[in-house]
Amino acid sequence: MNELNIGLFGFGTVGTGIYTVLERIRNAHASIKRICVRSLDRKRPVSLPEGILTDNPDDILNDPEIDLVVEVIDNADAAFRIVSSALRRGIPVVSGNKAMIARHLPELIYLQRTHGTALLYDASACGSIPVIRNLEEYYDNDLLLEVKGILNGSSNYILSRVFDHGESYADALEKARRLGFAEADPSFDIKGFDSLFKLVIITIHAIGVYVNPDDVLACGIDSISDFDIRYAREKGTKIKLVAQVVKLDNSRFTLFVMPEFVAPGKYIYNVDDEYNGVVIRGECYDRQFMFGKGAGSLPTASSILSDVTARHHNYRYKYNKMSYDGLPEYTDDVSLRVYLRHPKPELPHGIVFDKVSESYVSDLGCYTVGDISLAALRANKALLDDPDVFICNFPRFFLDLD
Amino acid sequence: MNELNIGLFGFGTVGTGIYTVLERIRNAHASIKRICVRSLDRKRPVSLPEGILTDNPDDILNDPEIDLVVEVIDNADAAFRIVSSALRRGIPVVSGNKAMIARHLPELIYLQRTHGTALLYDASACGSIPVIRNLEEYYDNDLLLEVKGILNGSSNYILSRVFDHGESYADALEKARRLGFAEADPSFDIKGFDSLFKLVIITIHAIGVYVNPDDVLACGIDSISDFDIRYAREKGTKIKLVAQVVKLDNSRFTLFVMPEFVAPGKYIYNVDDEYNGVVIRGECYDRQFMFGKGAGSLPTASSILSDVTARHHNYRYKYNKMSYDGLPEYTDDVSLRVYLRHPKPELPHGIVFDKVSESYVSDLGCYTVGDISLAALRANKALLDDPDVFICNFPRFFLDLD
Repeated sequence: MNELNIGLFGFGTVGTGIYTVLERIRNAHASIKRICVRSLDRKRPVSLPEGILTDNPDDILNDPEIDLVVEVIDNADAAFRIVSSALRRGIPVVSGNKAMIARHLPELIYLQRTHGTALLYDASACGSIPVIRNLEEYYDNDLLLEVKGILNGSSNYILSRVFDHGESYADALEKARRLGFAEADPSFDIKGFDSLFKLVIITIHAIGVYVNPDDVLACGIDSISDFDIRYAREKGTKIKLVAQVVKLDNSRFTLFVMPEFVAPGKYIYNVDDEYNGVVIRGECYDRQFMFGKGAGSLPTASSILSDVTARHHNYRYKYNKMSYDGLPEYTDDVSLRVYLRHPKPELPHGIVFDKVSESYVSDLGCYTVGDISLAALRANKALLDDPDVFICNFPRFFLDLD
Repeated sequence: MNELNIGLFGFGTVGTGIYTVLERIRNAHASIKRICVRSLDRKRPVSLPEGILTDNPDDILNDPEIDLVVEVIDNADAAFRIVSSALRRGIPVVSGNKAMIARHLPELIYLQRTHGTALLYDASACGSIPVIRNLEEYYDNDLLLEVKGILNGSSNYILSRVFDHGESYADALEKARRLGFAEADPSFDIKGFDSLFKLVIITIHAIGVYVNPDDVLACGIDSISDFDIRYAREKGTKIKLVAQVVKLDNSRFTLFVMPEFVAPGKYIYNVDDEYNGVVIRGECYDRQFMFGKGAGSLPTASSILSDVTARHHNYRYKYNKMSYDGLPEYTDDVSLRVYLRHPKPELPHGIVFDKVSESYVSDLGCYTVGDISLAALRANKALLDDPDVFICNFPRFFLDLD
């Protein structure tokens, strides 16, 4: 097998990492032929061969010697234009852009099929943990019950600093940014969008069903306060930002992203700092847990390179589960038990709990704990986005186990 | 793609599990056409269609409708005869027999290549954790530094009962057997052979080099005593049976199986009961940790079925790393720090430490802690097998990290 000639789009944190790692591998299957960047003038942290940089995408897309496009740019719209152009020309693509992939997955699958080419994106969905490929290949049966985990290294790093090290939220966010863990726009991480996009990607490989991210509730950690942290501590738990897709029965599943009270003894309790951790639960194999670095230049670069190697072996996702008989349907008609902090003694107008089990009012803050349907929360998402409101889930699915 | 017609060899714990799980999967890719057993008279725990059982291997091997052999029998020699016959006839095989695979790997690879067929054995090397396929596909580069873990569910279960629940070793062993966690011959588990065979299989997929199991030191837990347990507890550690393959530099690696003092905070510290846990360490991705059930009928059956599904997609191991340039060589010229309990105040004759750092003599027992080379331990393996001797490793590689 010949070495792959890569056309790389993007030379930020991850792109630089890919370049650095490729230089270090002795038995590399690939080399970078051309790098497309937004601006040729920017100073680069590594020295590059002359003429390798270009600001014209067509220098890569029209080069017949390029046999793999690697796309690691920030902008989801530009990424989609590049990736779909490459696929239409029959050039296989490796991408780490979760927002782009989660939004355009049906079209990207269609393009792969009609143009007989492949798009790999394991790097998009959990840093260095090979979740997608394992769901696609190894857990390819009906017995999968749940995939649940911490999918965002940046928000997890922040929560670890705040929770375990007593730092302020602002300091922790700044530190995450400095270490290269946070995306260009931090709201992507801390508002739960990054986790949401990863969850949508995981869901199609876990269950075989595409769910539009706009139809899924994602609550973030940006409004967490000392009051909430104290509450969690009093209960002996940590707050983690958790994404989950759960099969409720043979015909229905649900998915959402929400901060969660995580008790010691749960696998994800010890997933700290920039690490990601994913629990896969099945009928027969019970629980599997995978754990690895979820953010940072080199771990992400290394997982992009695993996709590059997979392309070297002509690997492609087959999306087998999408053609299974009797696929379950997404529902938000499911009851959650949540903690809701609200600024005034009364609940925000519009939010109605099915059952209130705790209600606390004080000068420092007010909260309600009780049962409410995911549908009701989705319908009132704007109220949950209020900076004075914080919502946190009590795990209910497979309670005794995870 | 058509459904695979399976010829199943063996209908013990795992074989029955496979049958049970296949019945439960709605979108199964395979069905069992014929089952070859040693004795037709034995009572079976599940009811079977008439005529499905046979005691003649040729009823499967000569059946042109069988397109996959699944081999889950205990006897390694019989397993090798069946598997090699099937491969010679071009029939792909899924096997869970680690002893057979570890001993015959070079020949099995040769047979796969010359007969253009495939042998999959992910189930052999860590119960339900997809270690082999991940090493083969995902970590296919030069940057892998170490694979280390608890590979034997049975001995880990026993150590958990003894260590965390204060049970006697004999009671714990009996319980493991009753729960179906122990192999037919428990010495396979408790003397470290099972871990050794798995480690040999892992090594070829991790490093690209086959090492004959006879050339690798494997020490078990069968001679552990209350004295050793007390010592470990005083140091704030647990004893686990750990298998590891470690790259020492670009040209050398080592591997061995030995009980190890595991401190809290290490990933494998919390791998208890029948679980397996594997840490994969690389230059860029740092540490990855995978965790799952390592013993029991259904978890093993479920991982066999993942291999069956992989065959349905025509997956095969490519053993790419074996053809890499500059493969490292196995060495036992490496210094370990060990705890050695011995029956008399003086060290067993023949065992010479390079450096003794602790030496303890009492009526209850004697031990020496110090540095000794792996080669010296291998040369004196017979002394280590004395039931009054127990050896336990202090982790030295990548000390600060795992």
